[in-house]
Amino acid sequence: MKKLFALGIMGLIAVAANAQQKPLMGFTPVSSAKQLQTEQQFDQAISAPRINETLKDLSAYPHHLGSPGGKVVAEKILKKFKDYGFDAHLQTYKVLFPTPKTRVLEMTGPTKYTAILKESAIADDPTSGQEGQLPTYNAWGADGDVTGQLVFVNYGLPDDYETLASMGIDVKGKIVIAKYGKSWRGIKPKVAYEHGAIGCIIYSDPKEDGYFAGEVYPKGAYKNETGVQRGSVMDMVIYPGDPLTPGVGATENAKRLDRKDAATILKIPVLPISYQDAKPLLEALQGPVAPESWRGALPFTYHVGPGAAIVHLKLEFNWDLVTAYDVIAKIKGSTYPDEWVMRGNHHDAWVNGADDPLSGQSAMLDEAKALGDLLKTGWKPKRSIVYCAWDGEEPGLLGSTEYAEDHDKELQQKAVVYINSDDISRGFYHSGGSHALESFMGEVSESVIDPETNVTVGQRKKADELVNAGSVKSKREIMNRKTDPIEALGSGSDFSPFLQHLGVPTLDIGYGGEGGGGEYHSIFDSFTDHERFKDPGSVYGAVLAKTVGHTVLRMANANVLPFDFRNLYATLNGYSRELAELASSMRETTAMQNELIKNNTYALAADPTKKQTAPQVKAEVPVIDFSALTASLEALKAGADKLAASTDAASNIDHKILNETIYKAEQQLLSPAGLPRRPWYKHTIYAPGFYTGYGVKTMPGIREAIEQRNWTEAQQQITAVAAAINALASYLDKAAM
Amino acid sequence: MKKLFALGIMGLIAVAANAQQKPLMGFTPVSSAKQLQTEQQFDQAISAPRINETLKDLSAYPHHLGSPGGKVVAEKILKKFKDYGFDAHLQTYKVLFPTPKTRVLEMTGPTKYTAILKESAIADDPTSGQEGQLPTYNAWGADGDVTGQLVFVNYGLPDDYETLASMGIDVKGKIVIAKYGKSWRGIKPKVAYEHGAIGCIIYSDPKEDGYFAGEVYPKGAYKNETGVQRGSVMDMVIYPGDPLTPGVGATENAKRLDRKDAATILKIPVLPISYQDAKPLLEALQGPVAPESWRGALPFTYHVGPGAAIVHLKLEFNWDLVTAYDVIAKIKGSTYPDEWVMRGNHHDAWVNGADDPLSGQSAMLDEAKALGDLLKTGWKPKRSIVYCAWDGEEPGLLGSTEYAEDHDKELQQKAVVYINSDDISRGFYHSGGSHALESFMGEVSESVIDPETNVTVGQRKKADELVNAGSVKSKREIMNRKTDPIEALGSGSDFSPFLQHLGVPTLDIGYGGEGGGGEYHSIFDSFTDHERFKDPGSVYGAVLAKTVGHTVLRMANANVLPFDFRNLYATLNGYSRELAELASSMRETTAMQNELIKNNTYALAADPTKKQTAPQVKAEVPVIDFSALTASLEALKAGADKLAASTDAASNIDHKILNETIYKAEQQLLSPAGLPRRPWYKHTIYAPGFYTGYGVKTMPGIREAIEQRNWTEAQQQITAVAAAINALASYLDKAAM
Repeated sequence: MKKLFALGIMGLIAVAANAQQKPLMGFTPVSSAKQLQTEQQFDQAISAPRINETLKDLSAYPHHLGSPGGKVVAEKILKKFKDYGFDAHLQTYKVLFPTPKTRVLEMTGPTKYTAILKESAIADDPTSGQEGQLPTYNAWGADGDVTGQLVFVNYGLPDDYETLASMGIDVKGKIVIAKYGKSWRGIKPKVAYEHGAIGCIIYSDPKEDGYFAGEVYPKGAYKNETGVQRGSVMDMVIYPGDPLTPGVGATENAKRLDRKDAATILKIPVLPISYQDAKPLLEALQGPVAPESWRGALPFTYHVGPGAAIVHLKLEFNWDLVTAYDVIAKIKGSTYPDEWVMRGNHHDAWVNGADDPLSGQSAMLDEAKALGDLLKTGWKPKRSIVYCAWDGEEPGLLGSTEYAEDHDKELQQKAVVYINSDDISRGFYHSGGSHALESFMGEVSESVIDPETNVTVGQRKKADELVNAGSVKSKREIMNRKTDPIEALGSGSDFSPFLQHLGVPTLDIGYGGEGGGGEYHSIFDSFTDHERFKDPGSVYGAVLAKTVGHTVLRMANANVLPFDFRNLYATLNGYSRELAELASSMRETTAMQNELIKNNTYALAADPTKKQTAPQVKAEVPVIDFSALTASLEALKAGADKLAASTDAASNIDHKILNETIYKAEQQLLSPAGLPRRPWYKHTIYAPGFYTGYGVKTMPGIREAIEQRNWTEAQQQITAVAAAINALASYLDKAAM
Repeated sequence: MKKLFALGIMGLIAVAANAQQKPLMGFTPVSSAKQLQTEQQFDQAISAPRINETLKDLSAYPHHLGSPGGKVVAEKILKKFKDYGFDAHLQTYKVLFPTPKTRVLEMTGPTKYTAILKESAIADDPTSGQEGQLPTYNAWGADGDVTGQLVFVNYGLPDDYETLASMGIDVKGKIVIAKYGKSWRGIKPKVAYEHGAIGCIIYSDPKEDGYFAGEVYPKGAYKNETGVQRGSVMDMVIYPGDPLTPGVGATENAKRLDRKDAATILKIPVLPISYQDAKPLLEALQGPVAPESWRGALPFTYHVGPGAAIVHLKLEFNWDLVTAYDVIAKIKGSTYPDEWVMRGNHHDAWVNGADDPLSGQSAMLDEAKALGDLLKTGWKPKRSIVYCAWDGEEPGLLGSTEYAEDHDKELQQKAVVYINSDDISRGFYHSGGSHALESFMGEVSESVIDPETNVTVGQRKKADELVNAGSVKSKREIMNRKTDPIEALGSGSDFSPFLQHLGVPTLDIGYGGEGGGGEYHSIFDSFTDHERFKDPGSVYGAVLAKTVGHTVLRMANANVLPFDFRNLYATLNGYSRELAELASSMRETTAMQNELIKNNTYALAADPTKKQTAPQVKAEVPVIDFSALTASLEALKAGADKLAASTDAASNIDHKILNETIYKAEQQLLSPAGLPRRPWYKHTIYAPGFYTGYGVKTMPGIREAIEQRNWTEAQQQITAVAAAINALASYLDKAAM
């Protein structure tokens, strides 16, 4: 205890000392000191017990999109913002949202089994047996009534189907069963459909988040045999939001697509099940034993199928238009009212959503309370602050996407930054987003103390990285680096439309790593579970509120916005090198594999009693010309250096013009055509992967073309990305005075 | 079929072409052609159906050391050798062999469970329910009656106890349960005892060779819930063989140690159990959840303990002296009767032992039959051929070790080579042993055709290596290498006393990789199992017989023995570089870890709700001086090159003197003092690892000192190994004319 206390003091001294050494990024020595004082006041107003109280209150009933509980939650949030002194209103959209009408899953042979498709309520968890819960289902799968042989497809990703093909197995006309994990769930049925499957079951293997991972709920945090992960399987990597209104806000009178023309609604029925329901199905499979890495923790030998196991899957949905209630709450900026520092977190859940999304939402509401307290002292932000509580994130970022599409021009004109959070738990700070904000986030992460260790959250994160880095070399690199990296953003939360469709500078901030469990999207994501396993007392809720609060306050008050495009350059340069190495390693691997195929090596190494097909010869990988990209990066470096030299916060230049230039710079990275086959995604640097879903692909046009061995497109996309980077480079060059 | 046939022809043409190109190593063009003809005759005499018949006959009843069935098997083997024209006799030793009198394992709390400790016979497998089977037990654990808390220790290796310590758990006064796998089983109770445990249970986790790996017996080849792996836990890395007669043959009147003074008998009771019996014990464990890599495939959360789970283990053994029946069978050499080409495989099993050892033993007997057929044609080997069927290998290489100790001087004088085999199955050729025989074995492996692919067994092995190599770089290295490597030998079969105690040049040859299963040392290692899963029809038994047959015949007939010390040099040079890299990487890792500890990094990264102790600061690793070793290797290179230039088989030099020099050269690598703390092991290059058991440690004196962070001893051992290599270098230099 003593040691920790000493460290705590040291941490605080370090923060204070750092503050004295040099002003905050974008501030003058005077405004910096004042800013730190404001942040101190802000921090004092943040209350973990109040966050916990909010979380308990808002998680008391199911509150999914379109539900009475969802409306109540939106109204409660609206009232809070108003009480705190925000100018708040509900902004509504009419969005499509399928809920289940019929759910049947049964095995008709070799034995009969009818799936239970229901989680069991638990006495210890008072909300787990409530009325009004959405049944276990995946939204956006097709209506369907299909019967077919069952095939186990591991995680259901493209590589898995290659493995199946090497075993001589295809899934045409069959129903696949994939396990949750590795990729976003929506990829699994999409890839199944691409391979000709007629239905897709997704189950939670106990190896992933069940008893293999730890004791199951309610004894421990992990998934018990009845737990099911609900979730969207919308083909969100084409576009997120309402499937019927791509690119425009789903207002009452918006022009809507016919449902059958909506590209993001899947073509086959999809159903998530528990491991209780998966067990008899998987155990009945015949055919080859599944490859070792495919096997889970159920107590039998995993086979791939197909065989005598025949499954009947029947699903029907209510395809209703429902109202999404976004809550938008503003504090008007004193100096630059038309520059908006935006902050958001969704409020809808799949069931009670104590952790997802309320751990983030309740923290955000406490930030609003603390800002309200500051307002009462007469304090005013220079820029406007806009808080957003989104509805309909769970089914596919509906509330945020419709809002962003509805206000696209205004946001591209006014939004300085969009700062997102979502579910969090005890543990380590992490952040992602626009890399021009990397140094800035480094500074923010040094301004908040971690309650478990009493060092800054940035220092603790670094300690975790150091311990987990694989080699002495990578540990040394982490120790020596000047800027702590932020992640690139893919999808999976409301930041996506702001960053990837509009080019608004974006941040996503969170905490986690010590709150593992299996409650995600189930009836067990409850206040009881949160209090026991995720973040008891919402201690880290308060840490999140402080971290995001500092971020908001600094962005709102900085003399010069704290962007540094030199960080962006360094990151992009890293991506460019990565891509060149990827292409060259694919060239070597392909040549070697073709040589081995030619030499009959695979056939010689194979066990003739097992059906195995040698890999097919692939076209040799041509040399790809990265010179346009390299040249554009040189130009970006020059532009970024030049701008950095002219962003002294204490100078007499017109900060308004400079700032407006700076925060709109990210839009230079948009390409008007968007990404190949998914034009909604306009950012040339960040996108969710076509086959990863949430997982990011950086420089996605180039990277995915290489991964898909489409060499012509790779070369075209190098031109496109280089053009965007060149545009940004000359934009920065002009901005620098 | 057509394609395979074409390949087959091509393979044969390749063999033939190769033969025409240049004479076999150690032969003249004329003697080489004659030799190939002899081998062809030999191959024609090998019969897979006869091998299978022998295997079925010898596996008909349990035949462990000291059993009536064991004696019958020895006598049957003796008769065969005599029938084939060998001069054969039984050589007997009186050896200690514990068999169980009392076996009790029960959990007394929190619930009561009495372990079954018996495998269930299976109707489909006629020998599985026979009388006379040894019960499930580990030989050489102590008598004992202990009760204590249970702790799960993963594989029970030193690293696992470090992990336990970091969780604040020690095993003093407790009973540990370790799972089979990773190391040789005898290491587990030894390390448990070193850490203060009072008893050790070893169980077969279904993840290792049970349902996780594949369908269980009798449906598939893997271990069913009652299967138990018997086996020796003798501390064989001190010395193998009869614990009462270290270093000398256990003849009737040999001087024997008191049992309590025998260093290789363990000090705590040890018992192997099935996963049926392990399940309730492991499920009752409390304490921290086991680290992810520790968890097996039983359907619950693995905990480490200790807690309410209390276990009572009571074991008593009959510590009897029994007779080991070695069968020794000779064909007298026509030219050099006092040069012995030795060939061995054990005949004792734990139960019926169809695979272990009879798959190897039956093949060996067919070699003898084929040699007998050659004798009948008037053919005679130049050198004497000595076939050995060992008893008592299973409890600790008793038959072979006692024979080798009993005949140590004679063997060092006469043994040109000892060629071993043991259990084999369908699949890939592999060989290990003295690296001066590496090129020779490369030639042998090109002289036998693989029946599944119709290329040479060497080519098929290389195909397997190529497919499984991790990187393009390592695939390229495999493609480009001139000599296919043979493995270094540790322990686990009868080659150990010849190579590591006497310095007799040694080879161990086998096939496997396509016969996976869980029958090892259980009642299910039966003819039925072998015929279904290991090597149906003993097809690979015949391949082994041909491979070893060619090896024996070439060694017996070569004009100049086919040793090439340049291969040895290259291998030793590789070891030396490996060791220097090991020391330097430990230096870097230690420095980095100490730095992280000093900076409190581990504490900062730890979850404070979990009991975890940061690693302790370790002494920095000094710079170790490898120059003596490097210099000795330079000398060896010169000596090997010089000798290679003077071993032309067609020359007029006195081959007898040259050959005698060559085959005794390996003895130069022995150190009179032996390895630190285990003087029985005299070879400075090859030994079983002190903490791996079967697994080899090359340059063990140096390597283990480094691994144990004993820097003084590492430096001393560099001197010792360099001295041995220098001795060999000048020996070769003198031998070269």
